[in-house]
Amino acid sequence: MCILAAVSASPTFHQRLRSIWANSGSLVCVGLDPLIERLPAGISHDLDGVLAFSKAIVTATAPHVAAFKPQAAHFGSLGGEDVLAELIHWIHTTHPDRLVILDAKRGDIGSTAERYAVEVFDRFGADAVTVNPFLGDESIEPYLEYSDRGVIALCRTSNKGSDWLQLQPKDDPLYLQIARRAVQWNRSGNIGLVVGATWPQEMEEVRRVIGDIPVLVPGVGAQGGRIDAVVAAGADSRGEGLLISASRSILFASSSADFAVAAALEAERMKLEINHERLKRNS
Amino acid sequence: MCILAAVSASPTFHQRLRSIWANSGSLVCVGLDPLIERLPAGISHDLDGVLAFSKAIVTATAPHVAAFKPQAAHFGSLGGEDVLAELIHWIHTTHPDRLVILDAKRGDIGSTAERYAVEVFDRFGADAVTVNPFLGDESIEPYLEYSDRGVIALCRTSNKGSDWLQLQPKDDPLYLQIARRAVQWNRSGNIGLVVGATWPQEMEEVRRVIGDIPVLVPGVGAQGGRIDAVVAAGADSRGEGLLISASRSILFASSSADFAVAAALEAERMKLEINHERLKRNS
Repeated sequence: MCILAAVSASPTFHQRLRSIWANSGSLVCVGLDPLIERLPAGISHDLDGVLAFSKAIVTATAPHVAAFKPQAAHFGSLGGEDVLAELIHWIHTTHPDRLVILDAKRGDIGSTAERYAVEVFDRFGADAVTVNPFLGDESIEPYLEYSDRGVIALCRTSNKGSDWLQLQPKDDPLYLQIARRAVQWNRSGNIGLVVGATWPQEMEEVRRVIGDIPVLVPGVGAQGGRIDAVVAAGADSRGEGLLISASRSILFASSSADFAVAAALEAERMKLEINHERLKRNS
Repeated sequence: MCILAAVSASPTFHQRLRSIWANSGSLVCVGLDPLIERLPAGISHDLDGVLAFSKAIVTATAPHVAAFKPQAAHFGSLGGEDVLAELIHWIHTTHPDRLVILDAKRGDIGSTAERYAVEVFDRFGADAVTVNPFLGDESIEPYLEYSDRGVIALCRTSNKGSDWLQLQPKDDPLYLQIARRAVQWNRSGNIGLVVGATWPQEMEEVRRVIGDIPVLVPGVGAQGGRIDAVVAAGADSRGEGLLISASRSILFASSSADFAVAAALEAERMKLEINHERLKRNS
């Protein structure tokens, strides 16, 4: 491993993420879920509006966040794949020091998973993708071939309705088994996990298993997850290790023409609240 | 339920499937996974070629099959969403008596799952979609709102690498729990399940739980699933209940200019083998 690291010129996904956490001073991830019917005043209710709105949100919030997470269905349902590709390319160009995670939760095996990997990494150019582990190891491996890209597997999702599946078997629940597998999958320093903010106890258990592997955390705000609990349970050994994601609370912080300012303020507020909790934890 | 059935003019998904099984005399489903590098002689290696090839396969095999199952990644990785939409629309127009199942295996919740449902049913116009149940009930419900469309949930996938997840807990494995949930989800006669041909014993257990709910069966041929075992274990009380899917063995039955004839022969061969096993079962 030491030899490989010495030979390899480009940083691993985890190394990139660490330098972004350090440089941005933020663990915030902005989910880009541009629901057309909620686009604010002054933005047209079409694909041009989706692109303009998304760019305005990125520009306004970039100083306060580590990553952007466009959600595939919100573009796909509008026939907006080209807009999604353009947006990701534009973020890379204007903000090369921020990550783009495509929230696609793809789950398939073999040559089909390879095709999805081509779609998310080559076509859309995402730095990382969310994937669904229900089909097992064969549904993760094809993405790992892209050793410089992040592969973020669902582990424990934020919604209550997943309990009957993810909490079984009781003596060694799936989310812990997925966490252990993640350690094995992490050959190239490019694995991440999704753990919902609504489950701080499970977050703590997962963190104990995975060491400093990064965790993407949905579910703060509307879904009831608390930032203090997430940071206390989920921060890694360096007080980082988390991408705490918010979508609507930032995107739709205002429905007026001041939406970008309102989004920036909400992203900053979230960053500061998280960092306050990180400081408490370290003191 | 009787009142609803009397008021409702349009048939349920299950009713449509039954009449297609009866009229086609076939339980075969052709997976449309048009890998560009395997397109046969005389077909251009681009999106035009993908569309021409797919249409030729549909035309040639339609007399012998019940359904077509385009796979989303094979179009998405090429930027071919418009081709996928055109293909599905064209199948509906030229073969209104055949089903189109979009193999997308989407898995998300809430408003995001709603967006995926809009994408697959409204944008692409699929008759049915495959979905991933890892996120629980909230990942199925939004699709069920489209009560005339099929919602086909992964239950037991054909690959060995999913054992560690789908076979737990040992005393009541997830695939059986998903089967029981499917009975509850089936309020509008529009639920289906995916069970791999590689697991006839699990297929038999699932069939006992779900009654006559249809099962989509991948994994015959290259993956080692046997048609005799699938039919014996999986046929429903009427000797139907299965959509046995094959992709490459039909699509790439020949790499020459006679590919469509070869595909038709392979689809017919498969139909006859299945029907032979159905007859044995009934006798």
